[in-house]
Amino acid sequence: MKRREFIKSGAVAGAATVAAGATITAAPAIAQSKTKLTIVSTWPRDFPGLGLSAQRLAARIGELSEGRIEVEYFAAGERVGAFDSFDEVASGNAQAYIAADYYWKGKHPAWAYFTAVPMGLTSTEWTAWINFMDGQALWDEVADGFGLKCLPCGSTGCQMGGWFNKEIESADDLKGLKMRIPGLGGDVMAKLGASPVSLPGGQIYENLVSGSIDATEWVGPYNDYFMKFYEAAKYYYYPGMHEAGSSLSFGMNKEFWTGLSKSDQEVIRAACQEEHSHQYHETVAQNGVHLARLVDDHGVELREFNEDIYDSFGEAAAEVFEETRDHSALAAKVHDSFAAARSELGGWMKLAAVGYSVQRNRVLDI
Amino acid sequence: MKRREFIKSGAVAGAATVAAGATITAAPAIAQSKTKLTIVSTWPRDFPGLGLSAQRLAARIGELSEGRIEVEYFAAGERVGAFDSFDEVASGNAQAYIAADYYWKGKHPAWAYFTAVPMGLTSTEWTAWINFMDGQALWDEVADGFGLKCLPCGSTGCQMGGWFNKEIESADDLKGLKMRIPGLGGDVMAKLGASPVSLPGGQIYENLVSGSIDATEWVGPYNDYFMKFYEAAKYYYYPGMHEAGSSLSFGMNKEFWTGLSKSDQEVIRAACQEEHSHQYHETVAQNGVHLARLVDDHGVELREFNEDIYDSFGEAAAEVFEETRDHSALAAKVHDSFAAARSELGGWMKLAAVGYSVQRNRVLDI
Repeated sequence: MKRREFIKSGAVAGAATVAAGATITAAPAIAQSKTKLTIVSTWPRDFPGLGLSAQRLAARIGELSEGRIEVEYFAAGERVGAFDSFDEVASGNAQAYIAADYYWKGKHPAWAYFTAVPMGLTSTEWTAWINFMDGQALWDEVADGFGLKCLPCGSTGCQMGGWFNKEIESADDLKGLKMRIPGLGGDVMAKLGASPVSLPGGQIYENLVSGSIDATEWVGPYNDYFMKFYEAAKYYYYPGMHEAGSSLSFGMNKEFWTGLSKSDQEVIRAACQEEHSHQYHETVAQNGVHLARLVDDHGVELREFNEDIYDSFGEAAAEVFEETRDHSALAAKVHDSFAAARSELGGWMKLAAVGYSVQRNRVLDI
Repeated sequence: MKRREFIKSGAVAGAATVAAGATITAAPAIAQSKTKLTIVSTWPRDFPGLGLSAQRLAARIGELSEGRIEVEYFAAGERVGAFDSFDEVASGNAQAYIAADYYWKGKHPAWAYFTAVPMGLTSTEWTAWINFMDGQALWDEVADGFGLKCLPCGSTGCQMGGWFNKEIESADDLKGLKMRIPGLGGDVMAKLGASPVSLPGGQIYENLVSGSIDATEWVGPYNDYFMKFYEAAKYYYYPGMHEAGSSLSFGMNKEFWTGLSKSDQEVIRAACQEEHSHQYHETVAQNGVHLARLVDDHGVELREFNEDIYDSFGEAAAEVFEETRDHSALAAKVHDSFAAARSELGGWMKLAAVGYSVQRNRVLDI
């Protein structure tokens, strides 16, 4: 009988005798109490990429804890609606959510920095900022104000710029465009004269087909492929300025977190960090394949945002950031740390993986 | 008493009675046997970056297993010499090594692909290839031939091109240069007329100062800072073509691995993946800081390898790869998978994090 099954069976209620002479594998030990961990999520069940990653993480926590942590996972809508995840966990009704923390920017704008902001950090830079610079301490400070404790648990990498039904050759072409784009990226688009709208994933396609919106972004080729946006908008732009390294959050009720044993905390940390890496690299591996399918099988036209447009994005983002900093001392502190990390890490990566990739790709015609 | 201490105390040898009425935390359970895991390493004790990362991983396996796995860690030279780690583990004398697998390329050239090869994958691309494409299956095939099972357990990212005592403006300037550069990167330098030599880390500085060698590469600013190469060679070139994403290996004796419980295997997998991510991001976070110190405090002159030199690197690397493929069907299979991943992943990253970084850095003057 496995230890987990033994505990679950409940055959012994507090006293037991284990036979002498049993092998060392049957030596008795004090079992720890079971911990209930109810997870709610902002992603639909079995959703490629995001949903599957969340489910994998939930199962992994149970597995690595050897069943000490009993995990129950609810996809979006199964227990509460996607955007009710925050309150469900902050109130203690559930113990954790898996979500993109920029969904909570209405509660405090600093939340946006822990998913992605326009002209922000890539996944590599963000993870370095969180784990080896000031990022986690600032995230803790923001989360603490809401009774939460968050850890990184996934990343979808650098997003595509979006799907458009006409070519975008200057910022003027964005004027009047109705585009589905949430977060501070939407605020940047608004500064440039577009009308950003926020729609949940399940309603984007119908709005694009009906012409209620002219453009949309979602994630990247792997995730977008399944959304069939190519049926209504054939120009697929890159690179996305709005989410260069979107990271996901395992947001726990703070009292739950502090009440855990050190062992259980470390299991959760390890599982979250493993999934943070896995989701990013799975997305990187899948995006190339799905981009080829979009282009070859569905006639999608790839287009690059030109330098003029990027200059406009940069100017608009600077205005959005000033407004964000003005919100509060904490928002300013988070922004300033983020901006300093962007200069420092960006400066290093420019000489390293970025500079190398540019040279290698040129030489090998990649 | 904690469960771990309870087991260690040995106060009960095979029979025990636990008092009725104890809280649920004292419910009895079957303990699992202890597993001995002796790790040898190619890195000196407490060596910044590499050594500290290996020690962190060793401790983490013990912690996440709740002491089921008893880890003993030996730095280079404490049990066997760095380069004897392979035989120590393949023979079963120790259970695992932490090393760069390209050290074993004399045993089979395919080992090089599981650390880094010239004009190869970045850390992000390599991790996607290993975990979500064919990489791990091919690594298993190579390792199986030597009675080993390897998992990724660290990455130092994209290396600098090296330290030179003169400017390098064309491949002609490399002719006759005695340079410390190991692996297939050294073979590329040899094709261009340099004389690559292999020296362990501890002997590089004295050889550079005495003029026995004219140039050296090591890792990147964080690791190189402590080596004081700037005292003998002031031109610090980037980006390194020879190791764009050097990854480390947790190489286990195959019989040990297959004999582990599923729980212990999964703890090792999670700890290795966590450290694989941590070491990379720690290095990224540290490199910028240390590069600034090298330039500001020690007058180091940063230089970029120009396009002509990169063209020469590309031609020489193609020749080296042809020779590697000719070794065996397995070497050819590994190379071809790696090269296909380089095109596919490189093509995606060019539109994503790389293309984005170039635009963002231009706009923000990073």
